[in-house]
Amino acid sequence: MNDNFLRALLKKPVDRTPIWLMRQAGRYLPEYCETRKRAGDFLSLCKSPDLACEVTLQPLARYDLDAAILFSDILTVPDAMGLGLYFETGEGPRFERPLREEWAINNLTAPDPYDHLGYVMDAVRTIRRALDNRVPLIGFSGSPYTLACYMVEGGGSKDFRHIKTMLYARPDLLHRILDVTSDAVIAYLNAQIECGAQAVMLFDTWGGSLSDAAYVEFSLAYLQKIVAGLHKTWNGGKIPSIIFTKGGGLWLEKIAASGCDGVGLDWNVNIADARRRVGDKVALQGNLDPNVLFAPPETIVAEAKKVLTAFALDNTAGNTGHVFNLGHGISQFTPPEHVEALVETVHHFHF
Amino acid sequence: MNDNFLRALLKKPVDRTPIWLMRQAGRYLPEYCETRKRAGDFLSLCKSPDLACEVTLQPLARYDLDAAILFSDILTVPDAMGLGLYFETGEGPRFERPLREEWAINNLTAPDPYDHLGYVMDAVRTIRRALDNRVPLIGFSGSPYTLACYMVEGGGSKDFRHIKTMLYARPDLLHRILDVTSDAVIAYLNAQIECGAQAVMLFDTWGGSLSDAAYVEFSLAYLQKIVAGLHKTWNGGKIPSIIFTKGGGLWLEKIAASGCDGVGLDWNVNIADARRRVGDKVALQGNLDPNVLFAPPETIVAEAKKVLTAFALDNTAGNTGHVFNLGHGISQFTPPEHVEALVETVHHFHF
Repeated sequence: MNDNFLRALLKKPVDRTPIWLMRQAGRYLPEYCETRKRAGDFLSLCKSPDLACEVTLQPLARYDLDAAILFSDILTVPDAMGLGLYFETGEGPRFERPLREEWAINNLTAPDPYDHLGYVMDAVRTIRRALDNRVPLIGFSGSPYTLACYMVEGGGSKDFRHIKTMLYARPDLLHRILDVTSDAVIAYLNAQIECGAQAVMLFDTWGGSLSDAAYVEFSLAYLQKIVAGLHKTWNGGKIPSIIFTKGGGLWLEKIAASGCDGVGLDWNVNIADARRRVGDKVALQGNLDPNVLFAPPETIVAEAKKVLTAFALDNTAGNTGHVFNLGHGISQFTPPEHVEALVETVHHFHF
Repeated sequence: MNDNFLRALLKKPVDRTPIWLMRQAGRYLPEYCETRKRAGDFLSLCKSPDLACEVTLQPLARYDLDAAILFSDILTVPDAMGLGLYFETGEGPRFERPLREEWAINNLTAPDPYDHLGYVMDAVRTIRRALDNRVPLIGFSGSPYTLACYMVEGGGSKDFRHIKTMLYARPDLLHRILDVTSDAVIAYLNAQIECGAQAVMLFDTWGGSLSDAAYVEFSLAYLQKIVAGLHKTWNGGKIPSIIFTKGGGLWLEKIAASGCDGVGLDWNVNIADARRRVGDKVALQGNLDPNVLFAPPETIVAEAKKVLTAFALDNTAGNTGHVFNLGHGISQFTPPEHVEALVETVHHFHF
């Protein structure tokens, strides 16, 4: 197996800097759009293990990527909790039953992943078989705070008014949601590991909307609890974990101290500064601005080299500890041929 | 005059920590909604010096605030450049002629503020007269990068795809826009100062969407140029300037070195950390999460005290250098009576 991705996360020597892209199986690929059309809608695609496997493998057929990531949605967990996930065309995800009433919050329970998220477990097993040990498979979940944002707001939000009101006015209720959701995420990620995921990533998409103190209390504390509850090894292999708080650049030291193996960086952060700040405690994943992929290939090459060089400048652990990625999911408007230039640049870079 | 606001920015002794709120004249006030209805629409309100003066003074009639801020919109400058500003109901600002063609960018010129933005100058004069030296009047402008975001995107954006594509693919074109816009902003702010503004603030709402390197090159460099070009004194008084980059917490040291007198902080930043990082170079303005105002008054009091105490902990310059504010504009959903609790807490706080 090309295990450069796992080795980089564990700070072991690598042959080349590994690269994968957040949302690498997505709408910028015409073959993805074709499969999605066949599935009917986004949720049906997530719920079909065969189609989820198909789209998971599509970017690997095109590009020499160093990891696959389970195709799914972060909101499968609150859906399994009974909130009723649906997608309004052009509107993003919504819940039929937003979580705002005290009685509903008290009734919230962590779903058994094998019972209520069996389709995800089937997808993990199917993908792992289809990958045939070419590259590692990443499992993932939303962070408790990020899931709670959607659960309380009932969908996406610009101002997070409802969850922030709860946070400041009734922190006890929010802590109850986050507690139950953390238990759900631990069980969910451990089940993914048991079914074949070789690394796991926590997407804390909205942690960056919090104040410094609130981030520690309402997001990081639960990420820490989850990392502590994860299988550290499975089937004889170490299972590294990655935490990615978008907009979390101010808190890198704290995230690095959470027990995770890798810290995801968005593109606001200078990766050389990040390296200086976290030292050799963790690997770093990131952090090219996804919008660079709109530029011509020569610019993509130059910008990718800037990230690689910046990491290397402060790389006291030798040629490892860096997983190249974008600083956020790849845009649906990305020309697919531009991704090729990026992957090649990363693989052929020499320190 | 209650000049605590100006004194705090210049790090002179104050009687009390001054407070004003971004967007303090706004939709959370029923009297504002009434005036706006009379004006017809938002743009007509901005363009009527008398009505703009009326809404500027409304929050001062309700609360014991330490500064007034000119009621206007950051997009008056690109409007005066001929882009055709309009507001789609519920959609936010839009431009009839987004700036994407090379010929249009080459033709861009900085408008004379007295000729093309005379209604703003009239508003400044009217407000200054009406204030009768009770508290200082703040003038403001959008930052060149933030204005360019709207100019190139043609309105608000989630991904800033068009301007980012220009930034990476044709940086020369973006620099040309930013250059002309900086000249426009310098002339605009200096005219506001000449008409009576006693401090000026630069709102860099979208600088935080940039990578570290791009922020320095495409936002901060132009903020620096503007600060260097501003009147430092007028009519015998010092005119302090404030730079606020939302999401700019990683770059505080750089912003503080730009020559401005005050740095605005959003609520992601711990103000004690900010103080440690920038030292005594500048005053700090901020930084309560505006969502705190949805909580009951006792929580507002407690959260405001946390900010005040955090600043004081690292306050090596005595009881000054802090202008209390929210970390972003006040929400339209804020109960007006909650603002009272905040203002009182700030004014009665003792170190």
